[in-house]
Amino acid sequence: MLGKVVVVGVGLIGGSFALALKAAGAARQIVGMERSQEALARALELGIVDSTTDSFEDALAGADLVLVAAPVAQTGTILAALAPYLDVGTVVTDAGSTKADVVAAARAALGGKVRQFVPAHPIAGRESNGPDAALSDLYQGKKVVVTPLPENAAGDVGLVAAAWRLCGALIHTLAPEEHDQVFAAVSHLPHLLAFALVDDIANKPHADRLFQYAASGFRDFTRIAGSSPEMWRDISLANRDALLTELDAYLAQLTVLRARLAANDGPGLEAIYTNAQRARRAWSEAIETAEPPAPTQEEPE
Amino acid sequence: MLGKVVVVGVGLIGGSFALALKAAGAARQIVGMERSQEALARALELGIVDSTTDSFEDALAGADLVLVAAPVAQTGTILAALAPYLDVGTVVTDAGSTKADVVAAARAALGGKVRQFVPAHPIAGRESNGPDAALSDLYQGKKVVVTPLPENAAGDVGLVAAAWRLCGALIHTLAPEEHDQVFAAVSHLPHLLAFALVDDIANKPHADRLFQYAASGFRDFTRIAGSSPEMWRDISLANRDALLTELDAYLAQLTVLRARLAANDGPGLEAIYTNAQRARRAWSEAIETAEPPAPTQEEPE
Repeated sequence: MLGKVVVVGVGLIGGSFALALKAAGAARQIVGMERSQEALARALELGIVDSTTDSFEDALAGADLVLVAAPVAQTGTILAALAPYLDVGTVVTDAGSTKADVVAAARAALGGKVRQFVPAHPIAGRESNGPDAALSDLYQGKKVVVTPLPENAAGDVGLVAAAWRLCGALIHTLAPEEHDQVFAAVSHLPHLLAFALVDDIANKPHADRLFQYAASGFRDFTRIAGSSPEMWRDISLANRDALLTELDAYLAQLTVLRARLAANDGPGLEAIYTNAQRARRAWSEAIETAEPPAPTQEEPE
Repeated sequence: MLGKVVVVGVGLIGGSFALALKAAGAARQIVGMERSQEALARALELGIVDSTTDSFEDALAGADLVLVAAPVAQTGTILAALAPYLDVGTVVTDAGSTKADVVAAARAALGGKVRQFVPAHPIAGRESNGPDAALSDLYQGKKVVVTPLPENAAGDVGLVAAAWRLCGALIHTLAPEEHDQVFAAVSHLPHLLAFALVDDIANKPHADRLFQYAASGFRDFTRIAGSSPEMWRDISLANRDALLTELDAYLAQLTVLRARLAANDGPGLEAIYTNAQRARRAWSEAIETAEPPAPTQEEPE
């Protein structure tokens, strides 16, 4: 049981965390903070938070846990603002889709207090945003990747893991750089590729005709191109090095595929397609049966 | 009302055509032909066809309409085999995912009788295959692209369009080359890109870890990589020129995107992402509301 929990950013991610803790009876008091006064009022109205404030001093007084659930590019600014009021007994965590940049920002903002910051990334999302999109069961059965720092006390890491477990999540642990490499490959690169394809088609002179005949394969391939451009700009830049590495590997792969296609190399094409089909089906059987798909999921991963 | 209809290939596509005509009371007799004796027997057992034969001579005697619903690479062989028995009053159509190659194969196989061949492509499919996957409503509200030849009589084109309308489909008309350019962009290229991504990830030394963290964005982006490697090898080769053109345009697009990412050009990335998001959402609103998505669709488009 947690005492006072502060949620900075009461939208989908932070709001769902608050609702899940409440549903589990796991927090005595939840205080909301948020740039948008409208969203903050709405979160209070919906019962997502028990009280609101725009003062980090008030919010952090006697807090057990602070979740920063804001766009990754804002994490450093928020941590710098709360640093002066961060008591030794308070643990801070985040929910950012990238981790190495967040860790660097946290070190700069918190100095020696960075030992109280336990970075984490819940692998869950939906198309919609804001307090009204928050769900108490958003994290049920979903992974949360915790990327502890060498400075973190084991008990602080345990507190963050326990809070997420109370939300129904499964805890995984990676180093921040490992995390960023993994998500560059399986999330950030696919987003970039989907944005690129839709932009490519939209810029052709006969785009209307092309879109007219796009069907279900196109729909699913490009679903993630409906995601927030600002959020994905920030994620792309925050994880630039790992993303460039994955993009270059993919460009090399496409170059091989192009050569086989140009050479009419049927067996060569089929070898790539067959390996992909086998791997996709094995993944689908192993992972999807463990975590039932939520058809409305769209945003951060 | 059609008299005798011959369906060559009684799997998902041909079987669903037969079931839809039967459900509409639109054919007096449906004869099935099929390489696999097991599938042929199953189609008869399921009532998809009224009778079966392995003789083109018997099948074509007195037939009004023949649908060739076989992999595109086999179309020429099948048309050559039926050509000697093709009476002047019989119309032949197909269901191939590519059209220029099918037209070339038809000209070679049918000679002067090519005037009786009306090429078409139903834009519908499912993950599963074979007679057991056939559905009487597979084509309900779906597009069928007819790509008539200069030699076709208007009445023959009308007969093929009428048959598909009886199945519930919406008829669109394109030239064969237009068709192939359109589907290279919105279907064939996305399939190639999805196969390439999954193969790329599967070949990495830490593939297991990567797949472990792949979530809903990856799932939808790569769903089409679960499609048949043989079918997509054939489609890739059959539509090679148009596919190379689209692939090269996409590679150029990725090169621009890579340069912006490497240069930390946030506004440049955001411009691409924003244009893509806007176009994807406009497409989704315009097209998806007109044709409700079928979540199980996977294969040919």
